[in-house]
Amino acid sequence: MSWHSHIAETVLRALAEDLGGRGDVTSQATIPAQQQARFTLRSRQSGVLAGAAVAQESFIQVDASVQIEWQVKDGEVLKADTQVAEISGPARAILAAERTALNFLGRLSGIASHTRKFVDAVAGTNACITHTRKTTPGLRALELAAVRAGGGAAHRFGLDDAILIKDNHVSVCGSVAGAVERARSYAGHMTRVAVEIDRLDQLPDALTAGADSVLLDNFSLGDLKQAVAQANGAVILEASGGIDLTTVGVVAETGVDVISVGTITHSAPNFDFGLDAVET
Amino acid sequence: MSWHSHIAETVLRALAEDLGGRGDVTSQATIPAQQQARFTLRSRQSGVLAGAAVAQESFIQVDASVQIEWQVKDGEVLKADTQVAEISGPARAILAAERTALNFLGRLSGIASHTRKFVDAVAGTNACITHTRKTTPGLRALELAAVRAGGGAAHRFGLDDAILIKDNHVSVCGSVAGAVERARSYAGHMTRVAVEIDRLDQLPDALTAGADSVLLDNFSLGDLKQAVAQANGAVILEASGGIDLTTVGVVAETGVDVISVGTITHSAPNFDFGLDAVET
Amino acid sequence: MSWHSHIAETVLRALAEDLGGRGDVTSQATIPAQQQARFTLRSRQSGVLAGAAVAQESFIQVDASVQIEWQVKDGEVLKADTQVAEISGPARAILAAERTALNFLGRLSGIASHTRKFVDAVAGTNACITHTRKTTPGLRALELAAVRAGGGAAHRFGLDDAILIKDNHVSVCGSVAGAVERARSYAGHMTRVAVEIDRLDQLPDALTAGADSVLLDNFSLGDLKQAVAQANGAVILEASGGIDLTTVGVVAETGVDVISVGTITHSAPNFDFGLDAVET
Amino acid sequence: MSWHSHIAETVLRALAEDLGGRGDVTSQATIPAQQQARFTLRSRQSGVLAGAAVAQESFIQVDASVQIEWQVKDGEVLKADTQVAEISGPARAILAAERTALNFLGRLSGIASHTRKFVDAVAGTNACITHTRKTTPGLRALELAAVRAGGGAAHRFGLDDAILIKDNHVSVCGSVAGAVERARSYAGHMTRVAVEIDRLDQLPDALTAGADSVLLDNFSLGDLKQAVAQANGAVILEASGGIDLTTVGVVAETGVDVISVGTITHSAPNFDFGLDAVET
Amino acid sequence: MSWHSHIAETVLRALAEDLGGRGDVTSQATIPAQQQARFTLRSRQSGVLAGAAVAQESFIQVDASVQIEWQVKDGEVLKADTQVAEISGPARAILAAERTALNFLGRLSGIASHTRKFVDAVAGTNACITHTRKTTPGLRALELAAVRAGGGAAHRFGLDDAILIKDNHVSVCGSVAGAVERARSYAGHMTRVAVEIDRLDQLPDALTAGADSVLLDNFSLGDLKQAVAQANGAVILEASGGIDLTTVGVVAETGVDVISVGTITHSAPNFDFGLDAVET
Amino acid sequence: MSWHSHIAETVLRALAEDLGGRGDVTSQATIPAQQQARFTLRSRQSGVLAGAAVAQESFIQVDASVQIEWQVKDGEVLKADTQVAEISGPARAILAAERTALNFLGRLSGIASHTRKFVDAVAGTNACITHTRKTTPGLRALELAAVRAGGGAAHRFGLDDAILIKDNHVSVCGSVAGAVERARSYAGHMTRVAVEIDRLDQLPDALTAGADSVLLDNFSLGDLKQAVAQANGAVILEASGGIDLTTVGVVAETGVDVISVGTITHSAPNFDFGLDAVET
Repeated sequence: MSWHSHIAETVLRALAEDLGGRGDVTSQATIPAQQQARFTLRSRQSGVLAGAAVAQESFIQVDASVQIEWQVKDGEVLKADTQVAEISGPARAILAAERTALNFLGRLSGIASHTRKFVDAVAGTNACITHTRKTTPGLRALELAAVRAGGGAAHRFGLDDAILIKDNHVSVCGSVAGAVERARSYAGHMTRVAVEIDRLDQLPDALTAGADSVLLDNFSLGDLKQAVAQANGAVILEASGGIDLTTVGVVAETGVDVISVGTITHSAPNFDFGLDAVET
Repeated sequence: MSWHSHIAETVLRALAEDLGGRGDVTSQATIPAQQQARFTLRSRQSGVLAGAAVAQESFIQVDASVQIEWQVKDGEVLKADTQVAEISGPARAILAAERTALNFLGRLSGIASHTRKFVDAVAGTNACITHTRKTTPGLRALELAAVRAGGGAAHRFGLDDAILIKDNHVSVCGSVAGAVERARSYAGHMTRVAVEIDRLDQLPDALTAGADSVLLDNFSLGDLKQAVAQANGAVILEASGGIDLTTVGVVAETGVDVISVGTITHSAPNFDFGLDAVET
Repeated sequence: MSWHSHIAETVLRALAEDLGGRGDVTSQATIPAQQQARFTLRSRQSGVLAGAAVAQESFIQVDASVQIEWQVKDGEVLKADTQVAEISGPARAILAAERTALNFLGRLSGIASHTRKFVDAVAGTNACITHTRKTTPGLRALELAAVRAGGGAAHRFGLDDAILIKDNHVSVCGSVAGAVERARSYAGHMTRVAVEIDRLDQLPDALTAGADSVLLDNFSLGDLKQAVAQANGAVILEASGGIDLTTVGVVAETGVDVISVGTITHSAPNFDFGLDAVET
Repeated sequence: MSWHSHIAETVLRALAEDLGGRGDVTSQATIPAQQQARFTLRSRQSGVLAGAAVAQESFIQVDASVQIEWQVKDGEVLKADTQVAEISGPARAILAAERTALNFLGRLSGIASHTRKFVDAVAGTNACITHTRKTTPGLRALELAAVRAGGGAAHRFGLDDAILIKDNHVSVCGSVAGAVERARSYAGHMTRVAVEIDRLDQLPDALTAGADSVLLDNFSLGDLKQAVAQANGAVILEASGGIDLTTVGVVAETGVDVISVGTITHSAPNFDFGLDAVET
Repeated sequence: MSWHSHIAETVLRALAEDLGGRGDVTSQATIPAQQQARFTLRSRQSGVLAGAAVAQESFIQVDASVQIEWQVKDGEVLKADTQVAEISGPARAILAAERTALNFLGRLSGIASHTRKFVDAVAGTNACITHTRKTTPGLRALELAAVRAGGGAAHRFGLDDAILIKDNHVSVCGSVAGAVERARSYAGHMTRVAVEIDRLDQLPDALTAGADSVLLDNFSLGDLKQAVAQANGAVILEASGGIDLTTVGVVAETGVDVISVGTITHSAPNFDFGLDAVET
Repeated sequence: MSWHSHIAETVLRALAEDLGGRGDVTSQATIPAQQQARFTLRSRQSGVLAGAAVAQESFIQVDASVQIEWQVKDGEVLKADTQVAEISGPARAILAAERTALNFLGRLSGIASHTRKFVDAVAGTNACITHTRKTTPGLRALELAAVRAGGGAAHRFGLDDAILIKDNHVSVCGSVAGAVERARSYAGHMTRVAVEIDRLDQLPDALTAGADSVLLDNFSLGDLKQAVAQANGAVILEASGGIDLTTVGVVAETGVDVISVGTITHSAPNFDFGLDAVET
């Protein structure tokens, strides 16, 4: 599906959920069908914007004549109480779409803003911040775009996107080396093979068996440093596991290439926006 | 759609997102097709379970022969490091569904757990805790079920479910009274009419015009108390706006009937579960 | 789903059904692809128009260049043999969409026209006419809009829209009072609770237990009057059950608030329209 | 789509419409989840049953454990106040599906019963009764099965199913002969060509040009007889246009092969069924 | 479904398959979002064009601003190395749609070109070339349009489109005559009945029982000629079974009306097109 | 989507296409509903089986009681005139599904068989045979599984699956080096970067800029050998462009790692199977 179709379909489902079979009965009851209105969309906190195209699609799907002028773009830093966009058109349509648009914008900007804090915390190191697959079911593509808007890098999108051997795979295969070798012979030449290890002594096997990347799960800072030394650039090293804003900086300083953080998607606080009528 | 169909369709979409067109290539590469395995699902923190049926559907859709035995039910309190379920069956299928199942369970139990804290904080008062429409697009029905599992009460599900006149509707209609009267004459006899006000002096109009319920948005504690006194049981009073765990108790003590809280859905932290292979 | 999307999807399905996989083979065989034509849509009987937007969408979906000018709007009274619209554009497209458009228009105007007869029959009383859930599967939203076009009022849309306790619920709960109390405690503060009774002696329980509305099923005129007297405005009273055009007037004169009528949706005769080529 | 899939999908949509996003809140509120119950489905008038499989699917989709035992089959004659089926299982599920099941059964049995009256009225002649394309959008396949249950014969299903040249096609082509010839040369060898005429003097052209079937629209009885004599068995003759129960018999006696009747689908009155709890 | 909707939906699915959840990551990585470009679409072999509308839809769905100017239309003969179209617009969109567009165009033009060879081989006889149901699952409508673009005639589209009794039906019914009679009495008056026979001695029964058309499966040239003589124009005769470009001419000369050929759809070689950037 | 769901959905669409709205009217007309039958599925040529699960799903979807016993599995070599499976159950269902099942099986086994010829032709070299994205729209996943059944290796599935920079990307970026560097910095650490070159002198840039894989498009044998020598194992080398069964062997002997072949998917001849009733 094209990116725009994906947004359109996701918005369609979200609007369906809120409008149900009868639509916005309050606006139908209290606002004349032809009434036009103008609103400003404002940030109520500081952070990074994400999801503008999704919010826009929400208004447009309810009524294609709604006009939206954005003052800020995805990935740009927002101060608190800043005007983000001006929205004008049929009052009923704008109010019917408001909650859906803000729900998308709040979640996605929340993710971008939270990601940016991690990215800022590793500035000056060689490490990049990336996401996990701990995303909201149904919203992964949008949430990963928000991670990118916040300065995060891409990890695999889903289970079919690259091979990442986890502890349970290793335990079934009997050894890190065995699992990596099976994966290597199965994968086509266009597919990366990564392996997760939770002990430093598993690293040599991973290196020998031909992994492209090694995920160091819940390693101590000391072990991370040793892993960096042992790998010596032969593979990409990724640190993961319970890393938060207080620890991410020192993890980055160990020399790992990538740090993956679940909370940037699964527990980013909602970003607060408001939609206010412009008195005319 | 029946409840089960709704779950099935939501899970289908979530699995599609993670499995993509090629499925779990890692498990295909490293685990024999016939391999059976057993896993335990454990809580890594304390709270309230929600989403068991959704997690179960995630496993079942990948392979109908997966067996799941739940030791805890939706709405029950979980201690940290407790076994929640035992899952057995084809190893590939269980690993393919794992992340989807945990993503649902983590979000929904996060919401139930966060809701429960608010519910506990108003225990002993007459107020009930309810949700807003600030839910994750596409997951509203599941999230509201999680709110209920956490002890929260139902508000309107969506825009077509009842009439709730907000400040923007009032400003278009010119007055609280005018908006409520229009709504009253539009609505069928089976539909409730609520109106949001943000100043105490709007209350008399709301009462006179025939609202069933009045939402007091961002009222001070003093104004809430006065509103309760003035309404004197004639309508349902709902407090809303920036209420958190430190304030919800005193808000409840003002005597309002309902307190609606956005953070229980839009910013509940993810609940941490783990799926561990059982050595056999 | 927005109202327009709902119409679009319903029309898509109807066209798919008539056009099948190969489309209108007759027009393909006999009419040149570029041939333009003009048609008038005329009423062949008197009544009330409903479904114009659905008919319009039927033509537009087959070919977006079809032009339609309506001389009558939904809810307006139609005399027999009146021009309702003029339709011009590609002849093949107009003929391909004709039957689908007329099938919608015939059914929906049939419902509006039949509803209007009931509405006219209660003119001068305080009762309003409303629908039941006895609608055509798949067309409820369109049919209820037709009821409204005919002057009918809204009842609940579906099972999730309000609580309406019927005789079978009562029999399971053991008593009217028990059922209403359970419902009251389950429902959120935004949901109405109605109860159906079929004997006058059940009314006091319904009133005491806190129902918002009472449906009096198959009551005699005498019992309806007594119910009105006993309720004395405390609840909304709805009469239902086998009410037809010969009886609806006297039922309304008993003082009930609402009269629900199944035949306005399930047995309204089709309204006859014709599409005639304009000789040029 | 297989017949069963078609039913399943149609029922899915109908249930979705009635259950909405929250399901049957009344039953959830008043009936315990585990409560079992037994009901009888009874006819409240006489006629012909149609739609049993659709009604059954309605119950089964809500809960696969519902048991239904049918005492009558599609196409069988029903007396008034006869038991049609016994339904047992979870009370909530049965009540949630009741209206959807009865809406299907009422419409489809209404069509079968109305069709049977026409079929009975032509008994003893060579004419068969068939339907038009004036069916409910979205329900054509089910309604035509109901026509067949009532003893009616099949006409073309939709626009892609055979060639039927109507007056508008003729007027565009300039002549009956021209239109039939174009159709004949366009159609593959597996497709029938029919042509509608509204004057007797068009018949010779239709015969000469190679039509397989001629539809005589709004012909007088005299003209029908002459058409039968002139065609002399060379083509199939179909009478159509405003034929009702008072006229269908004499139309059949003119010797036409087929009589198509719009009212058997578009204006058949609903058939009344009741679902009653069995006291146990 | 309208023809255009059918194309749109088929293209949507094909794009979804190629773009997956993340779209064309290569173009996103290497080409600026605003970059415009111009390309020519050229034939790399000779044949007949088919599928232009499908290719066009592929580009348009990815970005509605892509402009396409066709120099050749469906059904027209193409020499090798001819410019077929010029395509301009956003470079990312054009490259993202390229493979999908060419996959459709290559298959459909392959079918049209292969069909044309068979049509040319029977020129001067009365036989027409038609297709079978041996089409690519999901693409039948498009492939049959390609057959028509190549000069082939229509056979039945699918199983519901006419009655064609095959050997297995005959063996169940016991005899050709029995099967045809059953079919005749079942079919409505708008449906053709064809029967497949594999021995000349079955022909008299087929003729007597009232078949409209007889399919002569794997008949020798001698038997085909005898069948033509015996039928003497009373029914349509269709030859089928392993007919290729070396034999189709002599089969046509036996005097059969129709020759159906499976390879024109199931084994037509792909037609080679190239999309080349225009240096500017 | 899980693999099984993908098959189920693809089959659903294929059956819908063949069965239309009315199903297999021939079998309904000529075969009693309860009639059971037994058939053998036989190969009519030699090759490799692929698509058994898809064929099986085709029968099962029409009637879940159909029994299929496979004598051959996907990937196994088939001689001509071998029994592949025995199929028994309701005669109507088996005949309704027959064409859909054989259309899948014929195409997929055709691909597997054609692939196997290429794989056999490079036996004894280090090269593997892989596919391109020149697949049938809508059937890519099934066709690539057929390639694998024939012994082919996996390439990227679609545009979102890895980065493959083609000549048009290079021309927009200005240079091979520039394009690869942009891609490298854009791609996450889990994504491979490949680049297509069409001249040997582009190879050094590709190596330096950090490509993981280089696609040598339409290289002469001499240039392929030089590329192998120059790369010296630093990257994966893939040969592509007009390679057929007469040339693939010598291409493999140049030492390239991978050979991608479009014809194995886009022009594989259909594999001929027959379904024959077993006389009982």
